[in-house]
Amino acid sequence: MEREIKEKIKYLLYPESVAVIGASRNPKKIGFQVVYNLIKDGYKGRIYPINPNADEILGLKCYPNILDVPGEVDLAMIVVPASKVLDVLRDSIEKGVKAVAIITSGFSEIGNKELEDAIVDMCRKNKIPLLGPNIVGVLNTDHNMNLSFCPNLPFKGRITFITQSGALAIGLIGWTWASRIGISKLVSIGNMAMLGFEELIEYLEEDMDTDAILLYMEGVKNGRLFAEVSRNVSRKKPIIAIKAGKSERGAKAAASHTGSLAGNVMLYETAFKYAGVVSADGLEDGFDKALALSLQPPLKGDNIVVVTNGGGAGVLSSDYAETFGIPLRDIPVDLMDTVKNLIPPFGSPKNPIDLTGNAYRDDYIRVLDAVLRHPWVDGVVSIYVHAAITDPVEIADGIAYVWKNYREKPITVCMIGGREVLVANTWLRDNGIPVYPTPKRAMAAMAALREYGRFLERYGNEG
Amino acid sequence: MEREIKEKIKYLLYPESVAVIGASRNPKKIGFQVVYNLIKDGYKGRIYPINPNADEILGLKCYPNILDVPGEVDLAMIVVPASKVLDVLRDSIEKGVKAVAIITSGFSEIGNKELEDAIVDMCRKNKIPLLGPNIVGVLNTDHNMNLSFCPNLPFKGRITFITQSGALAIGLIGWTWASRIGISKLVSIGNMAMLGFEELIEYLEEDMDTDAILLYMEGVKNGRLFAEVSRNVSRKKPIIAIKAGKSERGAKAAASHTGSLAGNVMLYETAFKYAGVVSADGLEDGFDKALALSLQPPLKGDNIVVVTNGGGAGVLSSDYAETFGIPLRDIPVDLMDTVKNLIPPFGSPKNPIDLTGNAYRDDYIRVLDAVLRHPWVDGVVSIYVHAAITDPVEIADGIAYVWKNYREKPITVCMIGGREVLVANTWLRDNGIPVYPTPKRAMAAMAALREYGRFLERYGNEG
Repeated sequence: MEREIKEKIKYLLYPESVAVIGASRNPKKIGFQVVYNLIKDGYKGRIYPINPNADEILGLKCYPNILDVPGEVDLAMIVVPASKVLDVLRDSIEKGVKAVAIITSGFSEIGNKELEDAIVDMCRKNKIPLLGPNIVGVLNTDHNMNLSFCPNLPFKGRITFITQSGALAIGLIGWTWASRIGISKLVSIGNMAMLGFEELIEYLEEDMDTDAILLYMEGVKNGRLFAEVSRNVSRKKPIIAIKAGKSERGAKAAASHTGSLAGNVMLYETAFKYAGVVSADGLEDGFDKALALSLQPPLKGDNIVVVTNGGGAGVLSSDYAETFGIPLRDIPVDLMDTVKNLIPPFGSPKNPIDLTGNAYRDDYIRVLDAVLRHPWVDGVVSIYVHAAITDPVEIADGIAYVWKNYREKPITVCMIGGREVLVANTWLRDNGIPVYPTPKRAMAAMAALREYGRFLERYGNEG
Repeated sequence: MEREIKEKIKYLLYPESVAVIGASRNPKKIGFQVVYNLIKDGYKGRIYPINPNADEILGLKCYPNILDVPGEVDLAMIVVPASKVLDVLRDSIEKGVKAVAIITSGFSEIGNKELEDAIVDMCRKNKIPLLGPNIVGVLNTDHNMNLSFCPNLPFKGRITFITQSGALAIGLIGWTWASRIGISKLVSIGNMAMLGFEELIEYLEEDMDTDAILLYMEGVKNGRLFAEVSRNVSRKKPIIAIKAGKSERGAKAAASHTGSLAGNVMLYETAFKYAGVVSADGLEDGFDKALALSLQPPLKGDNIVVVTNGGGAGVLSSDYAETFGIPLRDIPVDLMDTVKNLIPPFGSPKNPIDLTGNAYRDDYIRVLDAVLRHPWVDGVVSIYVHAAITDPVEIADGIAYVWKNYREKPITVCMIGGREVLVANTWLRDNGIPVYPTPKRAMAAMAALREYGRFLERYGNEG
């Protein structure tokens, strides 16, 4: 793709002015919702509703044609019916917009490839990046920009989520709030007529607001390009892929859903491995891993220590450490001796370290400090099982307090409980510590940090 | 185990009178908490606090010795220090109690096997069932009995949870409330000095309040007995096992935690398969599957249909159907024709059936009714991805409304969203429909219903 087009991708994600072509006064129409969402969620750029049959929409002056807009327009967001898209696109180009996004559906996904090709040709000739068609929109939490028909912005954070499924985008926005998984930008790429994963990932390499890139992917346009671009970007920031259509039946469903060639699962897994893309096992695992990778440093060695107040949870964490390829090892004798003096005689100074159910904030602090301080230790999984006598918020605060002194070593936390641990979870995430409801998920997150760490080591060695 | 002892297990789970030996007026002591929890959570039986140094505890008359209690005592719950347990046990037997539970720790788990053996001998000679020692207690939601130091009863329901880890019991009680996973009884079995999984599972075969049995297990006392008993009970109600200590390291941790021989993982998996025990992958999966198996009938064939309003979620469900051994199949032509007339032209009448994001309550009702009515269909996974225009509570109500006419065919539901779907989830569970946040988990639950269905078919054929 030409450099000029690539450089203009920023106008899709950070436009200072947007024309909504097909804006409407009917609240049931997407053309209304897009304007409404921009205003409601606090977009600070200029908004130009375009509609020949309205003077004003939601208090904004409405223009009959984009060519009538007085100032410059960075981004044309098109929501008119498919049959009118070519016309308004022509006008937009004449106006000199720097990027185009098309929410309208009815293109290649229903067999109308010819019209889609014509649009792409027109954009390409004029060196304008095109997002879509058939998308829900573009959301940028850093700029309060909800340029979509999604009812809300996601929870603010450092993950950029690129999705081939628009419906999932809407559904998962509520999820990011419920789980406090921070999103920087949510980009729906729809039919990927011009821009696909490849181009957006390449752009995000330099994006200051993105610390991790999460993909919901049914298929890519160009496997080789995807692998090369991702490998390059992975050196700077982690990429996590939720790959759907792995099964034969799923691939068929993907073909009818997005027209994607979901392709051979082995091929994708090989490409992911080559490119350092962390593969996720479904939606939950994808967000779990993206959260850890957006908040924590990579795990730079294989020596992880589990610190728990519950024996059973410790046993489960040992199992999953092995399952996920980072089996627990015996801790050095000097560290074991130190720990032995900090825990009750009926606890265990081995790995997992069992503080017992009587462990309070200070016990967690003392043991975590000794563990994180030790040069042998590369990372820690800290587990709290809600106990009758302890306050999970106190424990969470203790964990956050210690970890701040050892930010170069990753930590993931598991908090087992109900309503009691909700505030503790919030506190941990607000302090940059990923927290999960089970030992399995906390360990899977740590394994993702190791997987990414191994890629960096491998890549470093290969040059 | 002798029949007389077995028959008395009911006095552990359904006692009409309890003596708390070692009751205390000090709120920091377990002897206080047990009495307090019985009162607070509404136990309707008679409570006799036993303590030679108090006249009254929490408004209840206190007796110096269990022998001083005027009426009969079904269950002696012992919380005195280990050194005094033999004495109070002797008195309890003299009093004629029908069962004994011991919260006190400091027995075989710290090497004090001799004392534990003496206690077991005494109970066995007198034909009294013994739970523990080293337990958190026994909780029975049907009788509001919180005979433990767990701060709350679990959420009421039809699963009986038997756990070898006491800490997990406490931690998971809050979880059952947050996820509305209904528990009938929670039994902490501690050191399993006399009663273990084997005896409790056998007892629960006839328990009217239990529809599914969930185990957190590090090891069993007698593998062969466990397999035979479980196989027998599985004919009547499903058993789900969260087996910890599967890895080498996990087995070591289990040995130091509960002294269990976690044993060879293959051995356990073989026993589970033989016995029809559904194996769970960790805590979340265990509760997910127990929920489905406690609420829904087994899946009696391999023909499941996915009904979704989101294409991406449909693709993921196809993948996981294959992963979990119940791959989606083409639906019969007549059913496809029926469905075609009920959905928009840009939807998909294939399996998964894609209703599109415009599907409202009535669309779900019409399609689910056509699907469930068809004799080819054995079960349904219904997916809702939160969409801007639809109300998840309406959809949930529609799903529950239809399913009530087809209760012999199992359904599991996936609702993807945040706060928006919480009420919908509650409504579904209150109507007996298990609901999960991802296609993966909804499909894993359906696969558990199939696994149990296959066991029943196999067993039926073998006689």
